[in-house]
Amino acid sequence: MTLHDLNWSPAEKKIARRAFDEALESVLAKVMAEFKRVANAVRTASDMWEVENYLRQQRREIDETFDYRYSQLLLVFARLIRDGHLDESRLGGLSEEKRNTIRSFLSIAEKNKLRG
Amino acid sequence: MTLHDLNWSPAEKKIARRAFDEALESVLAKVMAEFKRVANAVRTASDMWEVENYLRQQRREIDETFDYRYSQLLLVFARLIRDGHLDESRLGGLSEEKRNTIRSFLSIAEKNKLRG
Repeated sequence: MTLHDLNWSPAEKKIARRAFDEALESVLAKVMAEFKRVANAVRTASDMWEVENYLRQQRREIDETFDYRYSQLLLVFARLIRDGHLDESRLGGLSEEKRNTIRSFLSIAEKNKLRG
Repeated sequence: MTLHDLNWSPAEKKIARRAFDEALESVLAKVMAEFKRVANAVRTASDMWEVENYLRQQRREIDETFDYRYSQLLLVFARLIRDGHLDESRLGGLSEEKRNTIRSFLSIAEKNKLRG
C-alpha cells in the first residue's frame, strides 16, 4: 500500500480540504503580521530589499508546502503539524490508516531531528 | 570618437559621481515612499505578493539603470534626465563634448518617442 493507492471518501476529502485551507490561512496570517512589522520598520533601501527577500522566501516555502495532491497530502499534513500550523485534532474523521500514516511520518521526522 | 574613448578628468569624475549618487538617492526615495504607501494598504495575501512584485521590478530597473561604467555613463545620465531623476544643470563642469553627447541622446530619445 503506497500513498498513491489510498482511497479518499467524499467526507474525508471535505475534512482534508478544510484542514488544508485553515492551515494555509494560519500561515498567511503569520507571514502578513511579520511583513507588516518589518515593512513598518523599513528606514533604508537595504531594509526594503530585505523585505523583498523575506516575501520571496515565504512565498516559495508556501508554494512548496501547500501541495493539495492526494498522493502528497498525508506528508503535507505531517509537515504542517510538525511546524505548528495544524492541530492533529482537525484531522478527526480521516481513516485510522491515514492518521497512522501521518503519525509514522511525524515519528520519523522526530527521530531524524534527534539524530540531527 | 566613441564613448569608450572619452577621457574623464578627475574633476569630471567627481561631478559625475555626485550627480549619479544624487539621482540614485532620489529614485530610492521615490520607491521607498511608494513602498510605504502600498505596504500600508496591504489587506490580503494577494496584496502582499503584489508588493513583492513591485519591489523586484524596481530593484531590477535600478540595477539596470545605475551602471557607473565610464563607457555607459553619458547614456545613463541621458536616461536619468529623460526620466526626471536628474537635472541637467547638475552636470555643469563636464566637457562640452560630453554634454553635447548627452543632449544628442536626449534628442534621439525624444524623436523616437514622437515616432512611437
